[in-house]
Amino acid sequence: MIYITRRERFNAAHRLFRQDYSDEKNYEVFGKCSNPNWHGHNYELFVTLKGEVNPETGFLVNLKTLSKLIREQVITKLDHKNINLEVDFMQGKLSSTENLAVGIWSELEQGVKLLNAELHCIKVSESENNFAEYFGN
Amino acid sequence: MIYITRRERFNAAHRLFRQDYSDEKNYEVFGKCSNPNWHGHNYELFVTLKGEVNPETGFLVNLKTLSKLIREQVITKLDHKNINLEVDFMQGKLSSTENLAVGIWSELEQGVKLLNAELHCIKVSESENNFAEYFGN
Amino acid sequence: MIYITRRERFNAAHRLFRQDYSDEKNYEVFGKCSNPNWHGHNYELFVTLKGEVNPETGFLVNLKTLSKLIREQVITKLDHKNINLEVDFMQGKLSSTENLAVGIWSELEQGVKLLNAELHCIKVSESENNFAEYFGN
Amino acid sequence: MIYITRRERFNAAHRLFRQDYSDEKNYEVFGKCSNPNWHGHNYELFVTLKGEVNPETGFLVNLKTLSKLIREQVITKLDHKNINLEVDFMQGKLSSTENLAVGIWSELEQGVKLLNAELHCIKVSESENNFAEYFGN
Amino acid sequence: MIYITRRERFNAAHRLFRQDYSDEKNYEVFGKCSNPNWHGHNYELFVTLKGEVNPETGFLVNLKTLSKLIREQVITKLDHKNINLEVDFMQGKLSSTENLAVGIWSELEQGVKLLNAELHCIKVSESENNFAEYFGN
Amino acid sequence: MIYITRRERFNAAHRLFRQDYSDEKNYEVFGKCSNPNWHGHNYELFVTLKGEVNPETGFLVNLKTLSKLIREQVITKLDHKNINLEVDFMQGKLSSTENLAVGIWSELEQGVKLLNAELHCIKVSESENNFAEYFGN
Repeated sequence: MIYITRRERFNAAHRLFRQDYSDEKNYEVFGKCSNPNWHGHNYELFVTLKGEVNPETGFLVNLKTLSKLIREQVITKLDHKNINLEVDFMQGKLSSTENLAVGIWSELEQGVKLLNAELHCIKVSESENNFAEYFGN
Repeated sequence: MIYITRRERFNAAHRLFRQDYSDEKNYEVFGKCSNPNWHGHNYELFVTLKGEVNPETGFLVNLKTLSKLIREQVITKLDHKNINLEVDFMQGKLSSTENLAVGIWSELEQGVKLLNAELHCIKVSESENNFAEYFGN
Repeated sequence: MIYITRRERFNAAHRLFRQDYSDEKNYEVFGKCSNPNWHGHNYELFVTLKGEVNPETGFLVNLKTLSKLIREQVITKLDHKNINLEVDFMQGKLSSTENLAVGIWSELEQGVKLLNAELHCIKVSESENNFAEYFGN
Repeated sequence: MIYITRRERFNAAHRLFRQDYSDEKNYEVFGKCSNPNWHGHNYELFVTLKGEVNPETGFLVNLKTLSKLIREQVITKLDHKNINLEVDFMQGKLSSTENLAVGIWSELEQGVKLLNAELHCIKVSESENNFAEYFGN
Repeated sequence: MIYITRRERFNAAHRLFRQDYSDEKNYEVFGKCSNPNWHGHNYELFVTLKGEVNPETGFLVNLKTLSKLIREQVITKLDHKNINLEVDFMQGKLSSTENLAVGIWSELEQGVKLLNAELHCIKVSESENNFAEYFGN
Repeated sequence: MIYITRRERFNAAHRLFRQDYSDEKNYEVFGKCSNPNWHGHNYELFVTLKGEVNPETGFLVNLKTLSKLIREQVITKLDHKNINLEVDFMQGKLSSTENLAVGIWSELEQGVKLLNAELHCIKVSESENNFAEYFGN
């Protein structure tokens, strides 16, 4: 069993807030992250797969293939977008780093299986000080 | 003559576009950076001062004092804000990294003089691959 | 189950030695880390929590709350301090990276529970080449 | 139980290809990594051990001892070498990051046991975007 | 006058040696970098331009345009290549970081002028510890 | 004219204070950096030389030779030391980053000349947020 990880990046705007909260309540709970005019981040996404090395290629999965999958399924939806307004798999969810990790897992799980590997971890880094990891359950 | 540099960080949303351009023209010139729903970055700001070391303290300027100046004059205006909509010194300007560097220079130049030092360089990094530097003229 | 990590930093002096060893023996076992005049590091501390996402906030724990806890319980005790002489939870222990990780775990375990999360990992990095991790048992 | 990690680095040339493939087939499977004239990387190697802290020293293993082991058993064989042509433990294997991680595990497993610790993970990073991890089975 | 920098990366094999030296002499002068079987690096290239901000766009040069120029003129020639054997602008030259910086300058100088900017600096980083910079004379 | 830079690292303890100040005055001026029990840092040192490329070697200076010079003249004096108590070239000086940069310049200037190059810049980084640069006058 081997684990491989591919890093991809996306730059996006977002806002943490609940529509059923007042502006004051949103500020109390989410602080400056609730700014109604949005803010944004350079997100880093680390996708880790696990499985057996293919003896024919020496790869678990060709990382170029994995990169292509991540870009098509996830990065094109997120990069230079507004996570709250424009990302289908985040609709109706708070755009926290935790929820982003869970949402990206769902977007990639099937595609990774078709590569004969298993999705092991989605890590989303929002800044040099903060990140979330999701292992699928 | 010694040079000292302090790094500060801010997370902000922005959009590159001209109101006198159509959406198509904006996309042609600015690409996905023109997204009307905004995107954002983790910006890094490097402020470099030059001057003589004060023999009493061994400092050009106490970096805590410099950090306080940068936070009060610049970071509070930019962090978790929308650069196009909310930042006074960027009003009427395209929110490019180049213009941010020039704008931040103007915000800091006087305050640095009061610290008995000279502003040497403003470097603004928008991503791990892109940055702009301004030396005051 | 989600995992979130907050990075905090502290700069401290320390020395690796045993009082029951001679200077020669200390040098033999701990090398230049036994220098009686101390040396120091920019330590990086990564605190990882696990638990369920709160559907009300999208957070496991608000990272600002976690940061405040780490600063109050750990960083104020370590930052710009001498680990051997001034840090209560390291008294009577060798100030190795391993022992620091275990000691910080004990300082944070109760506070994390009060945040409705579980402490998962304490990672202490002493340099770009060396780090220790502790998972609680 | 504590985990410690030492990072070491090596710069090496390699090529991904199979002798039983034509040049066209190699290019189809391995892309530009199959270049017959070789290419290369600055590899980063992270070696993680687990075990009990020695109460006499506060160490799981002295990281200088671990560094010496890694350099003698692995780095001297890989650094400034051609992985395909010159590295004994990679002979007859595709020089993928996955296979490197497995091969380095075998080189270090016995030596780590003699240090009274257990090898936990070999992580090999080929670039800032790609890495492989092996946990021994 | 503003300065902008774009980072691009390439992975390449090379060897430092002179054909008019014996193997022993090559080893004496170039050490393990003279290995006849090659070694390699993850190179980082930083290209800095200077000039006036275009008031129409807020850019000195659109960094996407600059990235495209660097990739077409330089990266496609170097990435996953053998610098000694395959890179036209390095033929007959020692493949040192210094010479790479000078060679890449020549490849980019004209193209940058056509973008209405001036090439200011080529920085080539061979490892986290070593880099060379060339300013054109 | 080419510029080359070598990075070296050292871990040291220090304290910012004046003997002619009271403890209170030292704390007022230098803050927690005046802690009488010391604190410490992982310092990074970047040494930049300038000069002509030697056509025989393609080098300005062999970076291994430069590394050896820096280690012998500077790093052995600073690494795992107390800068205030043990470093000859810092005696009688405040151990600020600014003074370290100037002091290291003096230690290296003659040795670099013997390598047929000119010392261009000493950059000392005390943390990821703070650094000083000295260009010799």
